[in-house]
Amino acid sequence: MSRIAYVNGQYELMGAASVHIEDRGYQFADGVYEVCEIRGAKIIDFTKHMTRLQRSLRELRIAMPMALAALQIVMQEVVRRNRVRSGIVYLQVSRGVSRRDHAFPTHPVAPSVVVTARGISPQKGSDTAARGIKVITHAENRWPRVDIKSVSLLPNVLAKQAAREQGASEAWYVDAQGFVTEGASSNAWIITKDDRVVTRSADSGILAGITRAVLIDVLAAMQLKLEERPFTPAEAAAAKEAFVTASSQIVMPVVAIDNQPIGDGRPGAIARRLREEFHRFAEAV
Amino acid sequence: MSRIAYVNGQYELMGAASVHIEDRGYQFADGVYEVCEIRGAKIIDFTKHMTRLQRSLRELRIAMPMALAALQIVMQEVVRRNRVRSGIVYLQVSRGVSRRDHAFPTHPVAPSVVVTARGISPQKGSDTAARGIKVITHAENRWPRVDIKSVSLLPNVLAKQAAREQGASEAWYVDAQGFVTEGASSNAWIITKDDRVVTRSADSGILAGITRAVLIDVLAAMQLKLEERPFTPAEAAAAKEAFVTASSQIVMPVVAIDNQPIGDGRPGAIARRLREEFHRFAEAV
Repeated sequence: MSRIAYVNGQYELMGAASVHIEDRGYQFADGVYEVCEIRGAKIIDFTKHMTRLQRSLRELRIAMPMALAALQIVMQEVVRRNRVRSGIVYLQVSRGVSRRDHAFPTHPVAPSVVVTARGISPQKGSDTAARGIKVITHAENRWPRVDIKSVSLLPNVLAKQAAREQGASEAWYVDAQGFVTEGASSNAWIITKDDRVVTRSADSGILAGITRAVLIDVLAAMQLKLEERPFTPAEAAAAKEAFVTASSQIVMPVVAIDNQPIGDGRPGAIARRLREEFHRFAEAV
Repeated sequence: MSRIAYVNGQYELMGAASVHIEDRGYQFADGVYEVCEIRGAKIIDFTKHMTRLQRSLRELRIAMPMALAALQIVMQEVVRRNRVRSGIVYLQVSRGVSRRDHAFPTHPVAPSVVVTARGISPQKGSDTAARGIKVITHAENRWPRVDIKSVSLLPNVLAKQAAREQGASEAWYVDAQGFVTEGASSNAWIITKDDRVVTRSADSGILAGITRAVLIDVLAAMQLKLEERPFTPAEAAAAKEAFVTASSQIVMPVVAIDNQPIGDGRPGAIARRLREEFHRFAEAV
C-alpha cells in the first residue's frame, strides 16, 4: 500500500490524502490517468506514457498541470518515498475544482494532480503468469472515446466484477460485429497455429496501450509476424496461445476464454518468451 | 455557493470538504447522484428521487449508506445550514474508499456520502424561461446504462461544452436511428401542431426523469394528450413548441434546435403553463 501520495503540490500521508468534493474528477469523471510499471525502482516507458497522457488531456482540453520534467520528478519522488522497487505508479489529472456545472469552468481552474505508488511482488506476477489467467467475453458497452484514458471507468468496473464472479481475471469486450476490442484494463492478443501474433489495430475501438506498442518492437526483434486486425472469441478459443498486455501485467498468458481452454489450457511458450524479453525493449527512468 | 457540505458523517465548511483520493467515485466514476429542487426551503419530490437513487445503487450493488429517514434529515439539514430557500440539493453516493482495483472491494467498505446545497434565484430561472433556451443535437455517445444516474458523466460534460460553444444551453442526444434520446442533463419534449405532448418512453435510452414523471401527472390534469414515443430533430424543428425538464430547470422552453427556430422562436404558451402548474403536482418535504 502506498504510504505517501502526492496531491496538488504536497506529499501527504496516504490516510490523509484527499481532494475537494467539487473536484470535477469526483462529480463528472472529468479527468484522465496513467499507470506505469516500476521496475528496479525506475519508471518504465515514462516518455510513452506521458505522450499518451498529453494526448488524453488535449482531447479533453485540460491543461498539462506542470512541465513534463516536473511531473517526472514528482512521480519518481513518490516512488522513492514509498520505497517501491517493483510495482506501479498511478497518476491522475482532473480538470480541477469548480462549482458543479457540466460544461467546462468559465474561469481559470488549476488541474488536480494525484500520484500514488505501490509495490507488487515480482514473484506474485511470475506465479500468476506461470498459471495463466482466464478471461470472459463481455458485450462492448463503453462510449466510443476509449482512446482517451479517462477515469470514466464504471463500465470497466462492472465488466471486471463480472469476470471475477465467473472465476476469471479479465473481461474481453466484444463489439457489435462480434470482434474482440480489448480487455477492461488490458489489450487482447492471440497467437495463431502458424505463429502469427494478432491484435486489434489501435486505430479504432481500443486504447493505444503502451505495453502493446513496446511489445510490437519485441515481436519485430524476435522476427514474429504481427497481424493488426480484429479477431473473434471463436478464433481466440481455437488459437494456439492468447495473452493480455498492460503496464501492471506486462505480458500475461491467457489460458481460457469463457471457460473454454486455449491451446492445451496452459500458458503458451511464445507468450512466456515475450514476457521474458519485454524489458530489454522497455525504457527505464 | 454552498457554505456547508455534509461529507461522510460530518458537516464541514465547503472549502475544507474533501474525499479520499482512493474514493472509487474519483478513480472509477463508481458512484451515483441525485439533484433535487429546493423550493420554499423544502425538498421537492424527495421520495421519488430516493426511489430512483435506491434503484441506481441496486443496479451497481452499492449499499444504501444510511436509512432513508436519516438521509432525509441530512439533506434537509444541509439545506437549512446553507439557508437555501430556492435552489438545489446535490447528493452523491460512491462505493467508498478502497485500494485501486477495478472490481468491487472484496472487504466491506462503507459507501461515501456527499451532500451540498446552493441557492438559485427563482427570478433568474423565470428570466431564462421567459427567453427560452437553445439546444443543439449531438450524436449519442454514452454507454447504454444511462438508466443508472451515475457520475460517469464525461460524455455529458463534452456535449454540454459543445452546446455552450454553439451558443446553446443543452445538447440533445440523437441515437443511431436518428431519434432524440434526451438532453445531456434533462429530458427532451416537443408539442405538435395539434397539441400532443411528445417525449421518449423511459423504457430505453434515457434516464427516468423525476420532473418528467411529475409532468406526466400535470399533463393528465390539464387534459393534454401525451405520446411516449421517439421523435427526430426534424420533427422538433417543425414542432409548435419544445421544452426540457430537469429538477434544476422544472419546465424550460426550448426556442431553437441547431439554430433553427421552433414555432415562432419564442417560448410556447403550453410550456409556460406547464411550468406554472408544475408545483401544484410536486411534493415538498
